[in-house]
Amino acid sequence: MTIDLEALFIDLHRNPELSFQETRTAAIAAGHLRDLGLEVTEAVGRTGVIGVLANGEGPVVWARADMDALPVTEQTGLAYASTATGIDPEGHEVGIMHACGHDMHVTAMIGAVEELVRTRNEWSGTLVVVIQPAEEYGAGARAMLDDGALDRFPRPDVVIGQHVTPFPAGMIGVRPGPQMSASDGLHVVLHGRGGHGSRPHSTIDPVVMAAATVMRLQTVVSREVDPHDLAVVTVGAIHAGTKNNIIPAEATLDLSLRYPDEALREKVLEKVERVIKAEAMASGALEDPTIETLHTLPATINDAAATERATAAFRAAFGDANVIDPGLFTGSEDVSWFARDAGVPLVFWFWGGVDPVRYATAVANDTVDSEIATNHSPFFAVEIHPTIEVGVQALTVAAREFLD
Amino acid sequence: MTIDLEALFIDLHRNPELSFQETRTAAIAAGHLRDLGLEVTEAVGRTGVIGVLANGEGPVVWARADMDALPVTEQTGLAYASTATGIDPEGHEVGIMHACGHDMHVTAMIGAVEELVRTRNEWSGTLVVVIQPAEEYGAGARAMLDDGALDRFPRPDVVIGQHVTPFPAGMIGVRPGPQMSASDGLHVVLHGRGGHGSRPHSTIDPVVMAAATVMRLQTVVSREVDPHDLAVVTVGAIHAGTKNNIIPAEATLDLSLRYPDEALREKVLEKVERVIKAEAMASGALEDPTIETLHTLPATINDAAATERATAAFRAAFGDANVIDPGLFTGSEDVSWFARDAGVPLVFWFWGGVDPVRYATAVANDTVDSEIATNHSPFFAVEIHPTIEVGVQALTVAAREFLD
Amino acid sequence: MTIDLEALFIDLHRNPELSFQETRTAAIAAGHLRDLGLEVTEAVGRTGVIGVLANGEGPVVWARADMDALPVTEQTGLAYASTATGIDPEGHEVGIMHACGHDMHVTAMIGAVEELVRTRNEWSGTLVVVIQPAEEYGAGARAMLDDGALDRFPRPDVVIGQHVTPFPAGMIGVRPGPQMSASDGLHVVLHGRGGHGSRPHSTIDPVVMAAATVMRLQTVVSREVDPHDLAVVTVGAIHAGTKNNIIPAEATLDLSLRYPDEALREKVLEKVERVIKAEAMASGALEDPTIETLHTLPATINDAAATERATAAFRAAFGDANVIDPGLFTGSEDVSWFARDAGVPLVFWFWGGVDPVRYATAVANDTVDSEIATNHSPFFAVEIHPTIEVGVQALTVAAREFLD
Amino acid sequence: MTIDLEALFIDLHRNPELSFQETRTAAIAAGHLRDLGLEVTEAVGRTGVIGVLANGEGPVVWARADMDALPVTEQTGLAYASTATGIDPEGHEVGIMHACGHDMHVTAMIGAVEELVRTRNEWSGTLVVVIQPAEEYGAGARAMLDDGALDRFPRPDVVIGQHVTPFPAGMIGVRPGPQMSASDGLHVVLHGRGGHGSRPHSTIDPVVMAAATVMRLQTVVSREVDPHDLAVVTVGAIHAGTKNNIIPAEATLDLSLRYPDEALREKVLEKVERVIKAEAMASGALEDPTIETLHTLPATINDAAATERATAAFRAAFGDANVIDPGLFTGSEDVSWFARDAGVPLVFWFWGGVDPVRYATAVANDTVDSEIATNHSPFFAVEIHPTIEVGVQALTVAAREFLD
Repeated sequence: MTIDLEALFIDLHRNPELSFQETRTAAIAAGHLRDLGLEVTEAVGRTGVIGVLANGEGPVVWARADMDALPVTEQTGLAYASTATGIDPEGHEVGIMHACGHDMHVTAMIGAVEELVRTRNEWSGTLVVVIQPAEEYGAGARAMLDDGALDRFPRPDVVIGQHVTPFPAGMIGVRPGPQMSASDGLHVVLHGRGGHGSRPHSTIDPVVMAAATVMRLQTVVSREVDPHDLAVVTVGAIHAGTKNNIIPAEATLDLSLRYPDEALREKVLEKVERVIKAEAMASGALEDPTIETLHTLPATINDAAATERATAAFRAAFGDANVIDPGLFTGSEDVSWFARDAGVPLVFWFWGGVDPVRYATAVANDTVDSEIATNHSPFFAVEIHPTIEVGVQALTVAAREFLD
Repeated sequence: MTIDLEALFIDLHRNPELSFQETRTAAIAAGHLRDLGLEVTEAVGRTGVIGVLANGEGPVVWARADMDALPVTEQTGLAYASTATGIDPEGHEVGIMHACGHDMHVTAMIGAVEELVRTRNEWSGTLVVVIQPAEEYGAGARAMLDDGALDRFPRPDVVIGQHVTPFPAGMIGVRPGPQMSASDGLHVVLHGRGGHGSRPHSTIDPVVMAAATVMRLQTVVSREVDPHDLAVVTVGAIHAGTKNNIIPAEATLDLSLRYPDEALREKVLEKVERVIKAEAMASGALEDPTIETLHTLPATINDAAATERATAAFRAAFGDANVIDPGLFTGSEDVSWFARDAGVPLVFWFWGGVDPVRYATAVANDTVDSEIATNHSPFFAVEIHPTIEVGVQALTVAAREFLD
Repeated sequence: MTIDLEALFIDLHRNPELSFQETRTAAIAAGHLRDLGLEVTEAVGRTGVIGVLANGEGPVVWARADMDALPVTEQTGLAYASTATGIDPEGHEVGIMHACGHDMHVTAMIGAVEELVRTRNEWSGTLVVVIQPAEEYGAGARAMLDDGALDRFPRPDVVIGQHVTPFPAGMIGVRPGPQMSASDGLHVVLHGRGGHGSRPHSTIDPVVMAAATVMRLQTVVSREVDPHDLAVVTVGAIHAGTKNNIIPAEATLDLSLRYPDEALREKVLEKVERVIKAEAMASGALEDPTIETLHTLPATINDAAATERATAAFRAAFGDANVIDPGLFTGSEDVSWFARDAGVPLVFWFWGGVDPVRYATAVANDTVDSEIATNHSPFFAVEIHPTIEVGVQALTVAAREFLD
Repeated sequence: MTIDLEALFIDLHRNPELSFQETRTAAIAAGHLRDLGLEVTEAVGRTGVIGVLANGEGPVVWARADMDALPVTEQTGLAYASTATGIDPEGHEVGIMHACGHDMHVTAMIGAVEELVRTRNEWSGTLVVVIQPAEEYGAGARAMLDDGALDRFPRPDVVIGQHVTPFPAGMIGVRPGPQMSASDGLHVVLHGRGGHGSRPHSTIDPVVMAAATVMRLQTVVSREVDPHDLAVVTVGAIHAGTKNNIIPAEATLDLSLRYPDEALREKVLEKVERVIKAEAMASGALEDPTIETLHTLPATINDAAATERATAAFRAAFGDANVIDPGLFTGSEDVSWFARDAGVPLVFWFWGGVDPVRYATAVANDTVDSEIATNHSPFFAVEIHPTIEVGVQALTVAAREFLD
């Protein structure tokens, strides 16, 4: 290899960028793709990058990596930990961190492209490399598609992609059918009436309204969803007030709803909205809450036949024991939009990023949940090796499966 | 009058400054006091100003006005409404507004000093004008005292001060004994464990912990305080999270506690802390919540004899019908520290700032609570006239009562 | 005295009877009154008793004692503790106890009548002794009035009555104006949908609905009532379900609301109903909750002039130090209906029932709340002496004040 | 048939008996079994009945039916609806209903025994009929085993049993492996301090403590259990207080916990106990809650090989389309104890009891959850035909599978 992937990963990790602000990351990725000989277009869907490697007759494979980071203040203690800060969409200064591993996604993609370029005599077809922004807002795939991605570049016959996850490094997790959940993001504004902290009766206290709403929302999952069904209702953010002696006029809640079975979406949304409205009534609010949909993500559903082909290739490459069915994930992705809009198969898999010994020890001690940091945690850390190598190989193997 | 007090008020209203950031306001006040012939010292207790008018033998009267504004985004729709913004102590950009009328306090003080200077042949003694910062943080009086105010300037024989309030303009409210409540401000950090919004079981959700805590804190007043006693437990601010699909690692609550009877302080604090700790336990938190005292304010207790003298002077000046006993306020003040530290009497009163016709109409319609905005509301607005004139006269009358 | 009042008290204490079931107590009281020469009518207002002692020209004084006990299982450990049980209005078997001291009320009344009969040559007028049932349901006074009490017996010029309370024995507490609170009792049925405990999604869980309602009701007092105002919202009973693995179809709540200022009644009732309805909506209930008013009690307001007379008489009899202003009580009484319906003055006072040394020790240790059991507690116990003697004397003194 | 099974079912339905009080039901079942020629032993495990039909060499099959009813007041409106009442273990009078179909279980068992007797020449072995009490308390199987059932009667080679459920009549649901959940029943007493409803501060309010506990328990499922795992935490009963104006001294909660994966048991129990204790601390309780285990039920796990045999027999008898995998049930059973204690295979299945047309209509309208009453609902009603016939046949077919 001529590209120093470890250095690339560390550089990306040190310089995370929030969704739709990934200008530095995009420029780096575009630079590498150009150096490797691809025809590169920048600013597709605001900050997205598309690189095309036309290599003769044959199928068109879209290989996608997402590149945005999160408003999380890193606490890993790594030598190359991020100290970056930025301004989030609501104007607050926040720490920024690659707490979801998209730095590794870009790194592995660049490595895989280098490998595919190196072996271009062995395969035939067109590779379209999609460096996508704003996956964390569930908005980047849609932005690229709305910017004409399917029309401006060779249309795919298959879409592939991968996500690093807290498995032991060396393992691949993939399954046909439902792989990740559908999801909705809601931004809720509860309208109260502000006033002096010493005169609650002259106000309609939105802090209490918000607290009661959060408590009541727990009952959607605990009481109203069939225990056999999988649904998650998370309030990821709650904000109200500026000072202890002022009762503010409103409070905001940011909700993340998950349901692998899209049939649950409407029911859960209806229940959540019912609770939010009723709790405002219980507070005597003069105005209904404002409920805004931040994003709507489809379930990530792997095509059965294409996934079978990819899985067989993985087994051949990594050994049967290292390719598992990881089960359905409650997390969500917007990669599906590329395949859904194009009407073609999707294959999306996970690969491990944790030191295998550390993982095995945690399993033995039943401390996986407390010791192995998950995606989005401020302690999330990917073992550099062999994670890069396995990620490069997985992408290469899958692409070759469809390009050969 | 040679100073245009209306222009001064409007200028101060348009240019509000947060606690301990009142450099512009302090400079304006200092300028006027110097122009009026007082010996002025700036930067007493960070941004405070003290002006001394030595006018022969006689008592020393400290007249205090506070000058800081609040992190509230003005919604009054006034032509001279504030559009100022600033950075609060936690680094967030916030709107700033004189939502507590301290602009009027400074204005009335400057007018009263002008009047006392004009009539200096009629009285004898020393007037010490105290322009205090950071009343809203309960920290400004303490800062001035810690900066040697009692030693560097003539010690008081009496401390006087006033606060504008949503009474009809023209009315004075004053009572001997307890006038305002003792108060504590608490900043609480609830420690959870962060993670992905789709994997709540791998986290200790601080949003739910905070919501449960807020709901349980309601029971301190509803169940644990004798219904005959007056206590207020307000959570003025709640903050957690940056994004809907990340469960954050911690949440913060800012509490304002009020009790006119200082004997309740210890009991209420103990109950509040018990609830906060137990709710963290209910969440399975691995770490106790961090509870920091932001400020501790004493009850504002008017000296009986001095208040009787001032009240008689008010009755003579404004008529019996316009001088009422306003009852005990649940709000709090740090003006007491000046009198307590010096061991001298305090007289602190309220004066009205609402158009009397509008007020009477609201009383008739039983809409006072919903239509007359209270201090700290984004709709709080003081009727310029006759509020300035009554404020000037009240301060002058009270000062002359003790200086004659 | 010829009647053994201690034996009478112990007998009544051992044989408590629930509201409107006081047949034994009524018969005993009626027997004594007849023996003393009064003209006695039984079954006035179901189980009430009225005795008339016409003693020449002069005013008519109604002296009232209530006689019912409570569904409380006694835990005092007294030698003469009650072991009685009975069936409450909902058909449950409950322990019964004189946990509110009505046994002492009847005892003191019989003693006072004996004394007034003995001294009948010293006064002139008519004494009407009212032994009232069902004070604890707020229904007994109304029942007697609805049964024609004002028409069938000499109409009062004044109504007097007394209540034993956890003061030191020997003390009288009385004040002109508001003495006890207005109160409403509500019985609420929350309608859910029952089902198997393992299938919550097929039900509308009334246990969760009830719990959320109770938590939200706390905010009426903590947030919506002016901290200067006194209001109490108590849920005294909550019931749902028969078995851990059946989700029941409904839940019941029994509320007691208190407000010394009757102007608060409508506001608090409206807020309470708003919360109850909204929480049912939050649960997705298909039917609004049923809210039934169990009783509505007026504030107990002492007539100023008559109370001044009685207080002066108490001071003369017991010494100034033993007659205090007890402040406003949050408890409620239905004695007012007699005076309100007749349009005459009411004087209602408290007398102490706790051993003075024990009380003083608790005050010194700040353990009054935890060690001196209040009315309605299973540990409530009245010191027999001198409570009987003081109660007899207080009633006699007050009656004589109006009869002389 | 000579026994009128419809009449038997209606008679049992009209005369339901609570757990361990099933004397009438037991006598009827014993009578029929004796009439059919079995050797019958009564009072095995208090009210249980065992009938033995020794029919030559061969395997021993235990066929079990449970017979107790529930404290539910029937609301089906059926002509033969129960109007029975009884006294539950806490001494309350409750309505009684066969809301779980055990009347049908006994009926089908009697019919199957009659059929097996009739065809005794066609099979060889020993049939042991187990009429079990107190399944609803999770106590009856244990009681029979503790009473020596395995020693006093021929030991089983296989245990079979069935449960009627809201499937379409005609359908059989069965699966190898986990079929029903493990379960624990907890009875919790929360210790507060009682007092007068108007003096909450002198009490420790157990109603609020209970409500806060119920709300917090919702978060065990909504936040602390992996969304992929199935767990149910139901509070089926909450009780406190006797009267609106008395704050009681304690509250009780009855919990039903479910987890098909027994590995979850310890974790969920620990979380539930943590919440209950912490909420008592939040209330300032002076005593920890009392937590008593009412019952502990194992998961109902069907033996793979035996279930395969029975399923094949069902398919042959009812057609492939009528034998489905019903998935894992969140409900629980104590039938497992017979097989676990004996160390032999278990086969336990469900059969449908709803009119197929009504069921299909509800499916089409997406109203199954609201219109088809589940077990334990006061509206639970079994379609008499063909439910009896299918139940008889299913038992007969399964028994014959192992006896032939």
